Amino acid sequence: MKKLVGNLLYGQSGGPTAVINSSAYGVITEARRQNEYIKDIYVMKHGIEGALNENLLKITDKDDENVELLKHTPGSAFGSVRHKLPDFKEDDSKYVRLLYIFRKYNIRYFLYNGGNDSMDTCSKIAEYMDTIDYDVRIIGIPKTIDNDLPFTDHTPGFGSAAKFIANTVMEVHYDMLAYPKGKVTIIEIMGRHAGWLTASSALANLSGFGPDLVYLPEVPFSIEKFKKDVLEVYGKKKQCLVAVSEGIMNEDGVFISSSSGMKDAFGHFQLGGVASKLAQTVQNDLGISSRSVEFGSTQRAASHLQSLTDVNEAIKCGEEAVKGIISGRNKVMVVMRRSSEEPYNIEYGFYDLLAVANVEKKIPANMINKDGNGVTKAFIDYALPLIQGENKSIFVNGVQQFSKFK
Amino acid sequence: MKKLVGNLLYGQSGGPTAVINSSAYGVITEARRQNEYIKDIYVMKHGIEGALNENLLKITDKDDENVELLKHTPGSAFGSVRHKLPDFKEDDSKYVRLLYIFRKYNIRYFLYNGGNDSMDTCSKIAEYMDTIDYDVRIIGIPKTIDNDLPFTDHTPGFGSAAKFIANTVMEVHYDMLAYPKGKVTIIEIMGRHAGWLTASSALANLSGFGPDLVYLPEVPFSIEKFKKDVLEVYGKKKQCLVAVSEGIMNEDGVFISSSSGMKDAFGHFQLGGVASKLAQTVQNDLGISSRSVEFGSTQRAASHLQSLTDVNEAIKCGEEAVKGIISGRNKVMVVMRRSSEEPYNIEYGFYDLLAVANVEKKIPANMINKDGNGVTKAFIDYALPLIQGENKSIFVNGVQQFSKFK
Repeated sequence: MKKLVGNLLYGQSGGPTAVINSSAYGVITEARRQNEYIKDIYVMKHGIEGALNENLLKITDKDDENVELLKHTPGSAFGSVRHKLPDFKEDDSKYVRLLYIFRKYNIRYFLYNGGNDSMDTCSKIAEYMDTIDYDVRIIGIPKTIDNDLPFTDHTPGFGSAAKFIANTVMEVHYDMLAYPKGKVTIIEIMGRHAGWLTASSALANLSGFGPDLVYLPEVPFSIEKFKKDVLEVYGKKKQCLVAVSEGIMNEDGVFISSSSGMKDAFGHFQLGGVASKLAQTVQNDLGISSRSVEFGSTQRAASHLQSLTDVNEAIKCGEEAVKGIISGRNKVMVVMRRSSEEPYNIEYGFYDLLAVANVEKKIPANMINKDGNGVTKAFIDYALPLIQGENKSIFVNGVQQFSKFK
Repeated sequence: MKKLVGNLLYGQSGGPTAVINSSAYGVITEARRQNEYIKDIYVMKHGIEGALNENLLKITDKDDENVELLKHTPGSAFGSVRHKLPDFKEDDSKYVRLLYIFRKYNIRYFLYNGGNDSMDTCSKIAEYMDTIDYDVRIIGIPKTIDNDLPFTDHTPGFGSAAKFIANTVMEVHYDMLAYPKGKVTIIEIMGRHAGWLTASSALANLSGFGPDLVYLPEVPFSIEKFKKDVLEVYGKKKQCLVAVSEGIMNEDGVFISSSSGMKDAFGHFQLGGVASKLAQTVQNDLGISSRSVEFGSTQRAASHLQSLTDVNEAIKCGEEAVKGIISGRNKVMVVMRRSSEEPYNIEYGFYDLLAVANVEKKIPANMINKDGNGVTKAFIDYALPLIQGENKSIFVNGVQQFSKFK
């Protein structure tokens, strides 16, 4: 294999996670160690749009403090984007522009950190660069709180979101128990088509304060069954805590949420409001006091309660991407394989980008209970190792410190 | 003064805070030290209703582990209640019942942990017991995330809620910055008539990621002024983060929120939905993409991000209540006085219960900026010491451990 020497371009795409910046940390620190191959490190501002607009940031020693803080910074420290590239056979204008930028900055290594849609972007760019024979290696680094990427045991970002959800569900449950008069509390959790995050609420049961009922998008939702379930729990406990995915659908595949009908750039419907809708149903149809809680963007941004396991794995995914690209890997995504359950151990590998792009991994049937309103031990065994350890935030004056790249 | 020997009865009332159980810890541990005066320690389940229903828990050595965990437990570990006692001159049936319970359990010390309404309850019971000449001493222990009790520098519970709000606002702000297209994010924060919690969001500015605009119930809210403010910020930054109190009212004193019209047991209107209403206004009237975030009960229940200062002060308030009641204090509430700014120092004292009950302390004018859409340095100087330090949660298997009293 020819030794490729040039510059590296890294970018972030899609919804932020609590640890996507930890992967950026892994990329930057490993790329610095690989200075025989990688000369300069550039970062796109707002993902692929930054490349198209020549809005690039060169990482230098002056950034050391901000690089270090990446491990504690939520959101996307370099900006993110939702930008769908067209098929270059129909319209190659953006690809021609990217080629110009790649040549101008001598980009030979391209790392893109994102979810399904971002792997689609990587795959298209790689195919185009192949076609016009420009020598660049492209690797995708997985991230998504949704945990819906295939061919990897899980995705960086999921563990921290799961840890925040489990711990906050416990707190909301304990808070609900304060009052003698029964209440039905309904918590809405992110996850468009896959219920991994909503299922994670069940980890709160390890403390004794988990949800009584869990509704996942993998199981067709029936309002009548829901009311029956709630009445049954409420009859016994005079309280009921429900965790529900924003993406639950009825058996005809229609979202339960009061969708605004708006679509994002990838044509996905924007969801939200399902918990408040169900709380109204409980109040009106069952005559039981009910309230809803939406975790909203806090569940993906809670840098103050990162899973240390997740942070370390996100860093490692960044490092492995750099090592892989140096060693000649191309058109692949970094994946994690669980090589051992006891003790939990992850080995890193790669999987074909094309196979990953646009596929959503759902919760398998053996992790969902028979009644379709909870999870099984198989899910707990799977998810528990991912929320272990705490990454202590850096507080100054009682507030966290985040990276501030210009 | 006569030496009073008997049993102690402690209860929790009103909305939970992240540290009301720390005050319970202070009461129980100090009462154990004062065993020359206090023989048994009883706790009412669900506040005054537990006393009326003879639903009492005797704290023994077997509870040691749960007592220790009180410092890390959200909600109300012994249950709370909203129960307004009638005027005993009109209806003394509940007071007669309480007297029966007090006599049966030889209750000579009564400590009630709550906010304004709870001090009203204390005050009424004390007055009744005086009238019928039953020898019992009654002290109120302050708690409320709202920080609206008078005659005390602040209330236990406020610091932890403020810390959670400031840090979560930072995270939501950083998360919002991910996308290149501008967004207006509106965060709704608790606080019925006093804006202390909403103002606390401005502590996030210390990290550089605070709210651009802050709307408090102390300032009459104008939709037109709000739209003008948002346009001005958005024009400069292409982003705008707004923190708004659930309790904002227009100049006629009408709540802006889409109130459901439901009242709680004290006749207060239940609020909520103001952020989503304002987000719709931004979207429809200004044509700018906007979303709302409601922190909901997580802001009062976030045991995983307690302020250590707040925890220690809550414990101290519990201890001081026991010391006070032993030394002959009666019909008072524990108060905190800031005896020094640099270094921050609190001295503990007492204030007449009757004067405290049913009075709400609002944010003084010097802490609100001239435009009525932010806070001044005076507020930051006041609030900053209250969020200092972190009380490390006890995690087992990645989830917190809470007290479990039977």
